[in-house]
Amino acid sequence: MGMVMLRTIRAQQACSERWRRRGLRLGFVPTMGALHAGHLSLVAAALRNVDRLVVSVFVNPIQFGPREDFHRYPRTLARDRALLSRAGVDVLFSPAPAAMYPPGFATRVTVEGPLVAGLCAPWRPGHFAGVTTVVARFFQVVRPHAAWFGQKDAQQVAIIRRMTQDLGTGVRILVGPIVRESDGLALSSRNRFLDRAGRMAAPALWRGLQAGRAAIRRGERSPAGVRAAMRRVLAPVSPVRVQYLDIVDAETLQPLYRLRGRVLLAIAAFVGRTRLIDNLPVRVPR
Amino acid sequence: MGMVMLRTIRAQQACSERWRRRGLRLGFVPTMGALHAGHLSLVAAALRNVDRLVVSVFVNPIQFGPREDFHRYPRTLARDRALLSRAGVDVLFSPAPAAMYPPGFATRVTVEGPLVAGLCAPWRPGHFAGVTTVVARFFQVVRPHAAWFGQKDAQQVAIIRRMTQDLGTGVRILVGPIVRESDGLALSSRNRFLDRAGRMAAPALWRGLQAGRAAIRRGERSPAGVRAAMRRVLAPVSPVRVQYLDIVDAETLQPLYRLRGRVLLAIAAFVGRTRLIDNLPVRVPR
Repeated sequence: MGMVMLRTIRAQQACSERWRRRGLRLGFVPTMGALHAGHLSLVAAALRNVDRLVVSVFVNPIQFGPREDFHRYPRTLARDRALLSRAGVDVLFSPAPAAMYPPGFATRVTVEGPLVAGLCAPWRPGHFAGVTTVVARFFQVVRPHAAWFGQKDAQQVAIIRRMTQDLGTGVRILVGPIVRESDGLALSSRNRFLDRAGRMAAPALWRGLQAGRAAIRRGERSPAGVRAAMRRVLAPVSPVRVQYLDIVDAETLQPLYRLRGRVLLAIAAFVGRTRLIDNLPVRVPR
Repeated sequence: MGMVMLRTIRAQQACSERWRRRGLRLGFVPTMGALHAGHLSLVAAALRNVDRLVVSVFVNPIQFGPREDFHRYPRTLARDRALLSRAGVDVLFSPAPAAMYPPGFATRVTVEGPLVAGLCAPWRPGHFAGVTTVVARFFQVVRPHAAWFGQKDAQQVAIIRRMTQDLGTGVRILVGPIVRESDGLALSSRNRFLDRAGRMAAPALWRGLQAGRAAIRRGERSPAGVRAAMRRVLAPVSPVRVQYLDIVDAETLQPLYRLRGRVLLAIAAFVGRTRLIDNLPVRVPR
């Protein structure tokens, strides 16, 4: 049986309900399309673990700020569809914005407190509220047993875990590792915005993260010291403009005064006009 | 089979899941306990329409403001339990606050926009966010097909309808009419806070609403005129202090410049130290 594309809430709900009644385990991979090998690795992981897999392609307007790239975000549905079909996905769910947010839509699902105090949150006001709202909505419609997210959006994963646990949606949240180009650049749908110079420069993010990890392995335990090591790699690279370099507890995402346990090195930078993020979990040696 | 009392999320989830698997229709009546005939009328309506009925008793801390009456809100669980059991309820679900909001809980489900622009919302900041959050959480745990709410909290009903529709929880929201004492006072768990003078004065809210309706029936079409008619009844009554008198569209809760269609007369007033609300839907004659 081939892949089906569903475009309405009602059709997806009916489909999920039918499968659930039959006792099948449903998996879900939410995406904004413009699929790359990172997405496909989540799809492959999910397919190994569930009976039926739904992948959504939906460029979620409410998670973009007014000055962000909603309108130019790449839309490649025909290609995405072919990739997902070939991968063995059961349903491609691609609702119209007006189906997800009909006129009068006024609800927000938000996570407050420490998880949204740092990293991307202060730079993208409203972004995570948009993410948690759309994910909560998708979970209600798709009703998966488990959902897969990419480690590249580490803060998103932590926030969605929190939301899922708090609301008791009963969806298991699973995380797939970052997939990289051979030169270390983390795969991102936004990489296609890079011009030649930007594409050459962008792997500096990954080298910066590696430099931070090397500093920790050499015994550096102060976040400032690790940050300095990262900055030494990034500063000379043009056209890279760092937005933040952070070292936080890998689970709570809280700042650390002295590094211990599992930490997350995280970075956001503009490469030309394109904002990229990357991160690296590191176990601090005792 | 008698009524069961469940105190943990897990137990309620398991119970609901079992019933759903058997294809039974589940009803839900969320309450803060201190049950009166208004609650019991919702229970009776629900019992006529579902196969199994869950009633929650939970005084929800996050819907009370810091200066509101969370700590003195009446708690009468033994009596509530007896009433619900006698009524034929299947499950009394009464979780501890720490079960509903474990340490680290950080999620809020909110409704924004016009529905929270007027009536109680400006007077009780955070109140409706607390309500929608707890209801969303209950809906996830109880997974009812339909839930019953009282018309007395008309704004709450509108907001919960919105939230339910927006998130696609698939719960049908049903509303039971206000139940009144013989002198017109709307039943409320807070009526027990009234002293003798307050109890004598409190039916003025209902008389005020009736005066507003009478003005409309006499041909008054300006909100100011209707409000004046209501105020004439309420102003002389001590110890009643009006917080708001509003005439809004019954469905959108938006202010009207000229009355038409179905409108809602709504009132909030302190009677002594006790804040009471009441309302009356009126069809404006052509």
